[in-house]
Amino acid sequence: MEKFPLENDLVARGLSAYAPYLMNRITHRYNQTLGTTMAEAGLSTIKMRVVCALAAKGSLTVNDLSVYAVAEQSTMSRTLEQMAREGLVDRAMDESDSRVRVISLTQAGHDIYTRIWPAMAEAEARMFDGIDPADRAQLLETLDGMLRNIRLNPL
Amino acid sequence: MEKFPLENDLVARGLSAYAPYLMNRITHRYNQTLGTTMAEAGLSTIKMRVVCALAAKGSLTVNDLSVYAVAEQSTMSRTLEQMAREGLVDRAMDESDSRVRVISLTQAGHDIYTRIWPAMAEAEARMFDGIDPADRAQLLETLDGMLRNIRLNPL
Repeated sequence: MEKFPLENDLVARGLSAYAPYLMNRITHRYNQTLGTTMAEAGLSTIKMRVVCALAAKGSLTVNDLSVYAVAEQSTMSRTLEQMAREGLVDRAMDESDSRVRVISLTQAGHDIYTRIWPAMAEAEARMFDGIDPADRAQLLETLDGMLRNIRLNPL
Repeated sequence: MEKFPLENDLVARGLSAYAPYLMNRITHRYNQTLGTTMAEAGLSTIKMRVVCALAAKGSLTVNDLSVYAVAEQSTMSRTLEQMAREGLVDRAMDESDSRVRVISLTQAGHDIYTRIWPAMAEAEARMFDGIDPADRAQLLETLDGMLRNIRLNPL
């Protein structure tokens, strides 16, 4: 306990000097704003994340997709079943391990990605409005280091 | 749509160059880890946030508390009723407007803050392990600018 004395706590520093507070505020606002846009396009937040992760990564196992899309595995399995029925993803056996399923986007899934990307890019652009490109690059590097520090999964 | 061409999209850049992705991963992990610790202490995530916001800010209206604690107002009202019954917060009439309720921590609420702060400080310290103090300071400044860009509430 003595390692983290109250001398430098939230009362002394203020909330805004506590990085998790700022990040929770920002991600909440981002998720709310984009969630509304996606709902209008018939896409839940988790489906949006699945579409994006598969667009960026090609194909992924259910496990890895859960990590990238920040979702519990049970939620992910249900979501993927729905998305398969909707014709957005394909499920295939892994060539090296027949017990593992590999998920990828169908053409319709790719088309949805192309349709939703502008809203995501706009949400990102609004965040960085007026922020120096060097500070933005540094932010990404620091965030990447932070994720490496705390992630449970090596991805 | 042309403002955000696919040339610089997630496929071209990779997920890790999209700041909201990194922040969602980090905050999810932080919230999960701390949520488990707090649950063991009998505190939900929202109660933890209420305790911290009030510790940092002194007293707050329900509206402002909802913003700082990143919660819907209806959830916040319910949570505050519980916390009042548990003896953690006091609710008083605002001196300048009798329709407005102002919330503050009781001594028991302050004691809980003192008890949970070490876990929060530790979660923060793990995030920044090995990260240059200058990069950490720059991160806070950039995050603060990002929140100003996208927040709906002036707080």
